Amino acid sequence: MHRYRSHTCAALRKSDVGSTVRLSGWVHRVRDHGGVLFIDLRDHYGMTQVVADPDSPAFKLAEQVRGEWVIRIDGTVKARTDDTVNKNMPTGEIELYANEIEVLSSAKELPLPVFGEPDYPEDVRLKYRFLDLRRETLHKNIVKRTQIISDMRRRMGEIGFAEYTTPILTASSPEGARDFLVPSRIHQGQFFALPQAPQQYKQLLMVAGFDRYFQIAPCFRDEDPRADRLPGEFYQLDVEMSFVTQEDVWETMEPMMTAVFEQFADGKPVTKQWPRIPYDEAIRKYGSDKPDLRNPIVMEAVTEHFAGSGFKVFAGMIEKNPKVEIWAIPAKTGGSRAFCDRMNAWAQQQGQPGLGYIFWKEEGGVVAGSGPLAKNIGEERTAAIAAQLGLEAGDACFFVAGEPSNFYKFAGEARARVGEELNLTDKDRFELCWIVDFPFFEYDEDNKKIDFAHNPFSMPQGGLDALESQDPLSIKAFQYDAVCNGFEIASGSIRNQSPDLMVKAFEMVGLSKADVEDRFGGMYRAFQYGAPPHGGCAFGIDRVVMLLIGAKNLREITLFPMNQQAQDLLMNAPSEAQPTQLRELGLRVMPQQKKD
Amino acid sequence: MHRYRSHTCAALRKSDVGSTVRLSGWVHRVRDHGGVLFIDLRDHYGMTQVVADPDSPAFKLAEQVRGEWVIRIDGTVKARTDDTVNKNMPTGEIELYANEIEVLSSAKELPLPVFGEPDYPEDVRLKYRFLDLRRETLHKNIVKRTQIISDMRRRMGEIGFAEYTTPILTASSPEGARDFLVPSRIHQGQFFALPQAPQQYKQLLMVAGFDRYFQIAPCFRDEDPRADRLPGEFYQLDVEMSFVTQEDVWETMEPMMTAVFEQFADGKPVTKQWPRIPYDEAIRKYGSDKPDLRNPIVMEAVTEHFAGSGFKVFAGMIEKNPKVEIWAIPAKTGGSRAFCDRMNAWAQQQGQPGLGYIFWKEEGGVVAGSGPLAKNIGEERTAAIAAQLGLEAGDACFFVAGEPSNFYKFAGEARARVGEELNLTDKDRFELCWIVDFPFFEYDEDNKKIDFAHNPFSMPQGGLDALESQDPLSIKAFQYDAVCNGFEIASGSIRNQSPDLMVKAFEMVGLSKADVEDRFGGMYRAFQYGAPPHGGCAFGIDRVVMLLIGAKNLREITLFPMNQQAQDLLMNAPSEAQPTQLRELGLRVMPQQKKD
Repeated sequence: MHRYRSHTCAALRKSDVGSTVRLSGWVHRVRDHGGVLFIDLRDHYGMTQVVADPDSPAFKLAEQVRGEWVIRIDGTVKARTDDTVNKNMPTGEIELYANEIEVLSSAKELPLPVFGEPDYPEDVRLKYRFLDLRRETLHKNIVKRTQIISDMRRRMGEIGFAEYTTPILTASSPEGARDFLVPSRIHQGQFFALPQAPQQYKQLLMVAGFDRYFQIAPCFRDEDPRADRLPGEFYQLDVEMSFVTQEDVWETMEPMMTAVFEQFADGKPVTKQWPRIPYDEAIRKYGSDKPDLRNPIVMEAVTEHFAGSGFKVFAGMIEKNPKVEIWAIPAKTGGSRAFCDRMNAWAQQQGQPGLGYIFWKEEGGVVAGSGPLAKNIGEERTAAIAAQLGLEAGDACFFVAGEPSNFYKFAGEARARVGEELNLTDKDRFELCWIVDFPFFEYDEDNKKIDFAHNPFSMPQGGLDALESQDPLSIKAFQYDAVCNGFEIASGSIRNQSPDLMVKAFEMVGLSKADVEDRFGGMYRAFQYGAPPHGGCAFGIDRVVMLLIGAKNLREITLFPMNQQAQDLLMNAPSEAQPTQLRELGLRVMPQQKKD
Repeated sequence: MHRYRSHTCAALRKSDVGSTVRLSGWVHRVRDHGGVLFIDLRDHYGMTQVVADPDSPAFKLAEQVRGEWVIRIDGTVKARTDDTVNKNMPTGEIELYANEIEVLSSAKELPLPVFGEPDYPEDVRLKYRFLDLRRETLHKNIVKRTQIISDMRRRMGEIGFAEYTTPILTASSPEGARDFLVPSRIHQGQFFALPQAPQQYKQLLMVAGFDRYFQIAPCFRDEDPRADRLPGEFYQLDVEMSFVTQEDVWETMEPMMTAVFEQFADGKPVTKQWPRIPYDEAIRKYGSDKPDLRNPIVMEAVTEHFAGSGFKVFAGMIEKNPKVEIWAIPAKTGGSRAFCDRMNAWAQQQGQPGLGYIFWKEEGGVVAGSGPLAKNIGEERTAAIAAQLGLEAGDACFFVAGEPSNFYKFAGEARARVGEELNLTDKDRFELCWIVDFPFFEYDEDNKKIDFAHNPFSMPQGGLDALESQDPLSIKAFQYDAVCNGFEIASGSIRNQSPDLMVKAFEMVGLSKADVEDRFGGMYRAFQYGAPPHGGCAFGIDRVVMLLIGAKNLREITLFPMNQQAQDLLMNAPSEAQPTQLRELGLRVMPQQKKD
């Protein structure tokens, strides 16, 4: 027989009754039922109930074992009696009568219980992560994570992509977030950087003539800790394709990711045809470029109904400023003064002056709008609003007014709040969409100049013509995001592979050709030697896994995460370097300064 | 029609004749045959011949395009005439008559030609890697590399392993090579390290209750450049299993890797059943723990034949020192004085006093040994040596003498040299084996004490008993290598998961329990809370890929390698950091010192 096991702890069935078998695993729990000992033996695969009674030669040792000891058990498989069968366990029809026990590894008193998974402070969980990971929920999450990533890989291969690994010790990337630096020992005073993303390398791969690239790529950003971001490293499904339009990217990735979602959605519905929503439309309808489409509320402008109306606040704004609009947030089933007042109070908590509303009720067979706004604008306009939005008795509508660029974010939050409060949002589904046609430039209020809205590598729609003749802020980019349930899960673009166009775009934000050469030299040089049109995207793997697992915290889907102070409590990192290491690197650590 | 292509450059066949198609790709070469232009259009997938004659509306543009321009061509598929069919090209039966050409991207004068792949200086190749990678050989190598790694992944999944990614920002590892350090911004003066291997994490995964781990793992060692090692990062197929003996590891990995080799060996034979050769035996037979088994030479001790013989040098050594042995390197077909003298001269170049030999020839129906040694020891002993080694007329034998620990390396080199020179080594095959039973300790001559021979994480054979009672230098470890054609392609062991045994082993090399806690705290702590027996191995992916591709240089199988001075010439890394970056990290770069 094998030294440690003939079966895993998930393997034994009724058909094995009578066999002599060997199991190894962790003692999940020991119970004493009137002198008979029951040991739940656990391994990666499952759990088996072991029994030792005083007649068993293993009984004495069975009395000594404690939770999380690792033991080997030789025994005989017995059928459970009908009343003790556990239908919830794959091995629930049998138990193992222990003939021999060997302690493979004992355990000291546990700083963190495994059985029952009681809540424990996070620092203890991270320091004893090897115990934390034995807990059923986290163990399952991690296994599912590996399955999701493996499934992505398999599907990418099936649709003709190859996985290329790009360097991790690379050049500092001047765009985006803060780099992690790695001092060079051989070139003292110089530094490598860890990649924030393999963006430049994947584009260089296309220029090098490879066609369909993907990579489950580790990415590194030295950002200050935030609740929805682990310090240090994260993974993305990085994709790039040559000779494609943006439609090709969508049509390639959409069925692939839909299939991944369906595979792991536990039966929840998944959007099959992802709507392609222009950025401007998303802002107007949902107040966000990351709309949660599980929420059925669609906002609409109702400016005309307030223009020249008796509600002087809105009417006056509209008259004074042609950019002013009034947006309506329809709230089906929200037609009570109590709810409307609650929303109004919430808006005030958000620092808004309030949230105007109308709600409709039926009185004596007549549907009528209620509330101060309805009174001010009169029956006809109130009815017109109801008609436009399809609202009926029992419904409400909220209004925000001003220049949309100033209020759309708040309007989007109000939309989310209404959907949440009224239970309009169906949580048990995955609603996916593409947000497309992002603006190429944006106005940088701080520096009073235009700047790239997203990344300087994207291709402006209309090309050089657009850059030369259009109002810069009206230019769109071939730039898109994928959004699921209100979270951005991917971002991508068709790249600007023309050196001239690149220089022109940079000039428009106040940078010179020399800046382009200095900051993106490798790529800029490459584009001068035959660069194919190309584009791609990157899916945030951690985010996709969180959504599919339904986890609220990245640490619940990550094997060995750092804490919020960017420390690995298990391995004790970061830690001080040896003086010889610093000497070899030609570095000196400055005396610690007080943080501002 | 699609914006860029209806087909790839490898797709068109005779059955497409008459179709109107669109291709995009790089201009591989333009030829002018009597006023008719032939353009070889290349993409990732293949090549298509495009024709433009003066009647074609595309002719004028076709005259202008140059090598490595990226163009789109609309045209009509025509059959080639019988005498112009190219059977070596999948598209060789057709050509594309160009109706329209669009230049998607032109190219400046090329610093590195793609067509014809002429030799070019390495710094140019690395600086213009995006051109270098378009060359057929390197392009093919990289594609094959991605296929090999993908195949490994698939097979690991099929045999029940899941891929877990372990942290890349981690703790400095005190064993082994030099770490790359990453300064922490949030904890100034402290450093992360990049993993030399995920050794501790994979063991922690086993302690955490996961069962079959693998990872295509990036590893980082800050070593001085060496011909057979790229600076910086490399990849290993990292594997760990719980509740296993070393035989389980071998029996799991051997068929899997054999299948990978067979898949990519281009029909060359691959060892199906890898011999398991104890370390001591490998040293005695092959003079190496990385034997090239394609070389049929097996060394044997022939000490007895020289003891008390007329060859006083050897006889005297044997008499004086009982540890002295004489090893024979049989050289079938090497039986000429010219060859033996050449080997002797080679040995002297290696700093050896020389290489004694006997060679056998037939004269008048009698086989007799020739050379000074044969004369000195006489006919009978010469014949006994021939009999022991199965040598005949036309063969030779070389002899090395002394304490085997001093000469085995040279003997191994001589064995390799003989095999090479006499063409005994069949190059066109993959000979794989396991080298097992490595010594646990070795004697450290410099510090006059015993030290770990390999890694301190391995389990000594015989456990605590052996440590307490055996001569330390006689203790073997459950430690093994996989070797292919003379290269170590994997290393592994059953791990020491007992805290007591770990402390004892460290004490024997002069370290304390506190040292263990200090150096391997995470793991040592973990072993105290129920650690399963576990073991594994790691295959060097770059080495396996090199063997399968038949590449001589790691840069021929690596996408974006650094040069031998550890610089990325394409991306210009490493480079100086911004003063603000250094300030944020609390670091100061020391004035450059002259290297010793």
